Amino acid sequence: MKGSAIRELLKLTESPEIISFGGGMPAPEVFPVDAFRAATERVLLKQGKQALQYSATEGYRPLREWIAKKMATYGIESAPENVLITSGSQQALDLLGKVLINPGDLILTEKPTYLGALQAWRAYQAEFTTVPMDQDGLQVNLLEEALTAGPKFMYILPNFHNPGGVTLSLERRRKLIEFSDRYGVPIIEDDPYGELRYEGDHLPPLVVIDSEQCRNRPGRSIEKSSYYDESKPANGNGRAYMRGNVIYLSTFSKTLAPGLRLAWVVAPVEVIERCTVAKQGMDLHTATLNQLIAHEILTGGADGDDFLKGHVRLIRDVYRERRDVMLTAMERHFPPQVKWSYPAGGLFLWVTLPKYLDAAALLTEAVARKVAYVPGSAFHPAGDGHNTLRLNFSFCNPEKINEGISRLGEVFSEAIERHEGMSTEDAFSTLQATI
Amino acid sequence: MKGSAIRELLKLTESPEIISFGGGMPAPEVFPVDAFRAATERVLLKQGKQALQYSATEGYRPLREWIAKKMATYGIESAPENVLITSGSQQALDLLGKVLINPGDLILTEKPTYLGALQAWRAYQAEFTTVPMDQDGLQVNLLEEALTAGPKFMYILPNFHNPGGVTLSLERRRKLIEFSDRYGVPIIEDDPYGELRYEGDHLPPLVVIDSEQCRNRPGRSIEKSSYYDESKPANGNGRAYMRGNVIYLSTFSKTLAPGLRLAWVVAPVEVIERCTVAKQGMDLHTATLNQLIAHEILTGGADGDDFLKGHVRLIRDVYRERRDVMLTAMERHFPPQVKWSYPAGGLFLWVTLPKYLDAAALLTEAVARKVAYVPGSAFHPAGDGHNTLRLNFSFCNPEKINEGISRLGEVFSEAIERHEGMSTEDAFSTLQATI
Repeated sequence: MKGSAIRELLKLTESPEIISFGGGMPAPEVFPVDAFRAATERVLLKQGKQALQYSATEGYRPLREWIAKKMATYGIESAPENVLITSGSQQALDLLGKVLINPGDLILTEKPTYLGALQAWRAYQAEFTTVPMDQDGLQVNLLEEALTAGPKFMYILPNFHNPGGVTLSLERRRKLIEFSDRYGVPIIEDDPYGELRYEGDHLPPLVVIDSEQCRNRPGRSIEKSSYYDESKPANGNGRAYMRGNVIYLSTFSKTLAPGLRLAWVVAPVEVIERCTVAKQGMDLHTATLNQLIAHEILTGGADGDDFLKGHVRLIRDVYRERRDVMLTAMERHFPPQVKWSYPAGGLFLWVTLPKYLDAAALLTEAVARKVAYVPGSAFHPAGDGHNTLRLNFSFCNPEKINEGISRLGEVFSEAIERHEGMSTEDAFSTLQATI
Repeated sequence: MKGSAIRELLKLTESPEIISFGGGMPAPEVFPVDAFRAATERVLLKQGKQALQYSATEGYRPLREWIAKKMATYGIESAPENVLITSGSQQALDLLGKVLINPGDLILTEKPTYLGALQAWRAYQAEFTTVPMDQDGLQVNLLEEALTAGPKFMYILPNFHNPGGVTLSLERRRKLIEFSDRYGVPIIEDDPYGELRYEGDHLPPLVVIDSEQCRNRPGRSIEKSSYYDESKPANGNGRAYMRGNVIYLSTFSKTLAPGLRLAWVVAPVEVIERCTVAKQGMDLHTATLNQLIAHEILTGGADGDDFLKGHVRLIRDVYRERRDVMLTAMERHFPPQVKWSYPAGGLFLWVTLPKYLDAAALLTEAVARKVAYVPGSAFHPAGDGHNTLRLNFSFCNPEKINEGISRLGEVFSEAIERHEGMSTEDAFSTLQATI
């Protein structure tokens, strides 16, 4: 394990004079602080002793029921037994690593991919194979070669990719599930931002497409699935327990608040049971108080079950504006040699500089002008992608976004000018010196 | 990893008709619910946005400062940089396993030892060697042989042992530290109950004795210590950073509330830094809200910095009474063949049945009479200790303790009568059949 770029950058952003596009932080202005105050007061008045006591490793049952019901609105027939509450999605990644990865196992990810997953899984001595993305997400036509190398599982962020900013098209989702089925390689679907769509139609999660295919071709899919458990075909309500090849992760960090550390795994019962045993050795259970507060906010306020729907609408409006401000500012301030992805939702943009520039080296110049980002190599398992970087557009207000992008534009323009001022020979020796 | 006795028992205790001495739960009656309500309201009013946002992996700085100051009252010269906040002590065990254990590493524990540590470290393929305890704790005179086998570290619970209920004497603490120094084997000192002493004098933690020996014999200790880092001799206040061979763990679970999942590691800076990197891959950070609430309770109420002192006094009074009720009831109801430890503090008693009885088999009979405990073999790395069991005296009120101990007395007496009614030959074949 090595020290992390994200951690160092989170420290940077603590200095208020830096305009940070580095972290992945929600805008604090949209935190529902009053709803938290009211819900916490109700929880401590009505369930104070329960809220402060130890609780079950699987999570608070009513919250698991709420999540199973929510998943049903996506078309997933899951029961509370298919849901495990985790201390943030980062813990879900860690515990899936603990349960699934043996030293030397190969994991297939998009290129680039989420840094936190690399950190979690490197600790279990995983190795990585990658498939590149374009504006429609993972390039599924390049998948087959990587699958023949025998990865343990695929790690996919289909919506508003972190860090890529792109979304996997419906057609590619279907093809991906077909490949998963054909090669018997399960998928971990990480969907922290799915609700934060600013335009276009919601696309079905991979887990939904997979479960439809399970129904259509039961013999084949189930036989290949590592997760199907014939002994548990149905729960008490007569609904089928979920089965299939996809483990689905989501979180309250981007819709309620990240400071709660509250997320969940949806998976076949057999996977949930193994994860529960692992989680017990990791932190016994996620904080009881936080689970009760979240459940109370989601169900117990004046809006009843509609609180989240309304609150997410507010977040979408704020972040859509910030995205648009950033895109407009980039058009204005970035030199034409710089390219970027167009995010239909989420929190991030992916920027590609000319190949001869190094985003990590330029970060020093950026920080000198009091603006920060994450260099792209951190998101590449093999450490390449030196000319790429990630920008977050959710945290800073529009004024700061304009100012920060203008400063970054200066940094990039000057670097390109310096390069173009050099002879080819000079450029080559500069490149040599930086290797 | 295998399914856990603790988890199954926590489930049992959810049924209100069972008198459970099984879990390790605090009495909900002593939870400071009103202090939590007031502190949470103040935090959300004054620091709402900060409380709901991501925060640093190391923990909330003012809480780390409070803990460093508290450690100083024990005589430990630690700085906030020596403190890492964890999501319960269970996470501290998991992350120390991640940082320190390679597959096949040997770990030295007391016999019996804390089940959660075995669970956490078995996931890293640790192996265990044990040294038995008596009423004065670890039998230090038997330590040397186990040390020559080359353990990676020793795991010691010096105060009011879980599950043993005994306390390591001062003389043995000194000898233990000498052995640690002589063999260069570091110690993880787990001290969740240190403040819950019901009689006698507070004994210095191992980490204090170790740091005194570091000062007295610097050349030798420091040379051997894996944690001393010469490049960081002092912090900004001119105080020496902690150094030495002991990693100290404690928690707010037994003094404030376990539902917060809030604990800490105190260790040399180098250890804290490695643990911080590991923790980042595990859950990014412990819930911000919970850390701010704890800090506010500890410092911001009407009692100022004295809240915990007063609250711990209340807990001691309640638990001392329950311990005494349980001890008196055991004298009255348990047959003379049954022996138990005398706890000067903490939450647990350790019971030893005659060798021919199996506590796991008798649990079925106990649960049939609606009373529960944890069979002792779960606390033995090698799975022995079949005739031992753990009783918790903090959770049930005195009336239930009396009733539950009376029922257990019946179970044990009947089992002994059954055995004594058998001929020696019968007993032998019963024993054979259970192996």
